[in-house]
Amino acid sequence: MPTASPFDATEHALMAEALRLAARGAYSTRPNPMVGCVIARDGEVVGRGWHRRAGEPHAEVHALREAGEAARGATAYVTLEPCSLHGRTPPCSEALVAAGVRRVVMATGDPFQEAGHGIERMRAAGLEVDAGLLQAEARALNRGFFARVERGRPWLRVKLAMSLDGRTALASGESKWITGPAARTDVQRWRARAGALVTGVGTVIADDPRLTARLPQEEIDEGGLAAPVRVVLDSRGRTPAGAAVLNDAAAPTWLLQGEDVPDRHGGARVEHIAVPCDDGRVGLEAALALLARRGINEVQVESGPTLAGALLRAGLVDEVLLYVAPLLLGERGRPLFGGITPETMAGRIGLETVETRQVGTDLRLLLRPRGA
Amino acid sequence: MPTASPFDATEHALMAEALRLAARGAYSTRPNPMVGCVIARDGEVVGRGWHRRAGEPHAEVHALREAGEAARGATAYVTLEPCSLHGRTPPCSEALVAAGVRRVVMATGDPFQEAGHGIERMRAAGLEVDAGLLQAEARALNRGFFARVERGRPWLRVKLAMSLDGRTALASGESKWITGPAARTDVQRWRARAGALVTGVGTVIADDPRLTARLPQEEIDEGGLAAPVRVVLDSRGRTPAGAAVLNDAAAPTWLLQGEDVPDRHGGARVEHIAVPCDDGRVGLEAALALLARRGINEVQVESGPTLAGALLRAGLVDEVLLYVAPLLLGERGRPLFGGITPETMAGRIGLETVETRQVGTDLRLLLRPRGA
Repeated sequence: MPTASPFDATEHALMAEALRLAARGAYSTRPNPMVGCVIARDGEVVGRGWHRRAGEPHAEVHALREAGEAARGATAYVTLEPCSLHGRTPPCSEALVAAGVRRVVMATGDPFQEAGHGIERMRAAGLEVDAGLLQAEARALNRGFFARVERGRPWLRVKLAMSLDGRTALASGESKWITGPAARTDVQRWRARAGALVTGVGTVIADDPRLTARLPQEEIDEGGLAAPVRVVLDSRGRTPAGAAVLNDAAAPTWLLQGEDVPDRHGGARVEHIAVPCDDGRVGLEAALALLARRGINEVQVESGPTLAGALLRAGLVDEVLLYVAPLLLGERGRPLFGGITPETMAGRIGLETVETRQVGTDLRLLLRPRGA
Repeated sequence: MPTASPFDATEHALMAEALRLAARGAYSTRPNPMVGCVIARDGEVVGRGWHRRAGEPHAEVHALREAGEAARGATAYVTLEPCSLHGRTPPCSEALVAAGVRRVVMATGDPFQEAGHGIERMRAAGLEVDAGLLQAEARALNRGFFARVERGRPWLRVKLAMSLDGRTALASGESKWITGPAARTDVQRWRARAGALVTGVGTVIADDPRLTARLPQEEIDEGGLAAPVRVVLDSRGRTPAGAAVLNDAAAPTWLLQGEDVPDRHGGARVEHIAVPCDDGRVGLEAALALLARRGINEVQVESGPTLAGALLRAGLVDEVLLYVAPLLLGERGRPLFGGITPETMAGRIGLETVETRQVGTDLRLLLRPRGA
């Protein structure tokens, strides 16, 4: 049963359209949130816009440009509170006022701003301002941005691929390839929406991954694809000199290393960053706080069971993206998460299945740890 | 693209209805196959029937009774070749002739009969006989019956329940309960369509299962529920005297034991059956051949990883019914199949996903080993 909403069906459809526009920036707006804007008069759309890249015009500016004079007296549907700050672009709240917009409907507030300044200014200028239309959807779209700003830690997704019998590799470590081509292409789309791809140095040494987002050109929208930062947790500085992640041309790389580890890998886009370590391992909370401070909204971890298990045990996993291939690697294969050893059924770790989908011959599950 | 069929859409619908009728006997016709029959004139149904229990009237007889005089000149759609044998009931091919049916369309032949005798007799009596309408569906419905008759071995389904990380129990063996209530109810429906529920004595000793099909009365059709035989592979005669599977009232029990094991468990419905053993284990092929000779069409194995793994390695598994619960039991938990230890990715065992479905909070996969 739908609960009573102050917004009618047309307004829901207009905000849904604004959210779809916003999502077109999924690969490009970071560290900014994705934002979409629809300007409408009597339910008819007169302007549409979405934010493409940090430093470029906001969604509202694009929509106002398209609306032109038709913006006068119209309503603007915006997926996030219009900004009130003079930053790299003029504040959108002022632009909406200047264009003669009569009413602004926003899906959700922007935790990054001083609370409500944009709203106050617009109201002071005589605009009607309403909030909360499709708020849950708007927050879900920018879950990385909200996680970073509100809790100082990126949204963390662990990507794993396993056999039907729960093994991520053979005993030998061999894991190429568990999943089929469709799943491997699908992974690239999830990589592309992450601000950082994180792995452990063990995986770098064993598999030498490139850790880049590789998508066909036709899947990349006007904003382009902002290459995700490659992050290696490497407390003791063991990343080999010729590792693929050190390839300057592909993407920036941050080596998170112990404070006593020298900066061995020169390179314009390879950065050595000292982080606190515990017991010879990079401190996970400190590392994630560092990524948040550097503007990373969404992290995708692609590692072996040791790092995945440590993150899970520390309660730092927001979602698990799990590909299940219909094959058996056998009882000696490597486990999904390391270090999980409940003694009783009461001690088991519960997850919630958010989505199940067939991807080629493999199954894709999206899960969230219970309580996350 | 549909391939050209000599049957029109109305005929497809009529045979589909006959298949639905047949399926109503899933819990009751064994060792007989499920059979449905629809009698129609000019596409209008005048009689419907389905076989309920061995020894009771066949589908055609029920349908002819309902049709009465309207059968004269009508077409009968039957999911399996009408019988020509004087067995516990008079042959259906004769009954169709006697009723004045003009044409018979059957989905598939009956391998149990001497090939084509029923067809020959009907043709000799002037009936038109066509075959092959929805044949694949008809064979799939009775996959157990066809497996038993054609290859002398029942259709074998292994039912397993595992955690997301591929574990069927904790290291301690504790496994109550991995799956939720919806999955546990669902299992009962799969049990109810099996002629035999097979387990190993290790599971009997560890978990003391009842191994019965327990369904709410409203899910049981007119044919009733023929209790599946409980089968314990127990080469050395270790089934404890008080084991729940020895409860006479619940269902018959066959203890498959080594030839030197004495018959220790008296009981009207508990039978000791000597079988060849290899290396202290019941010979699996011999055991399955025995079940086939005793009229078991479909077997559901509910055991630990040892028996499940042995069956899989021996190529005796036709399908895997796998419930996946969204929780982690950890790396020390018990594996899905025992004894599967490929050394290279080339040696991995592939399966094909036939169906994926959410059952309550759990996921249910139906898979078939590749090549099975």
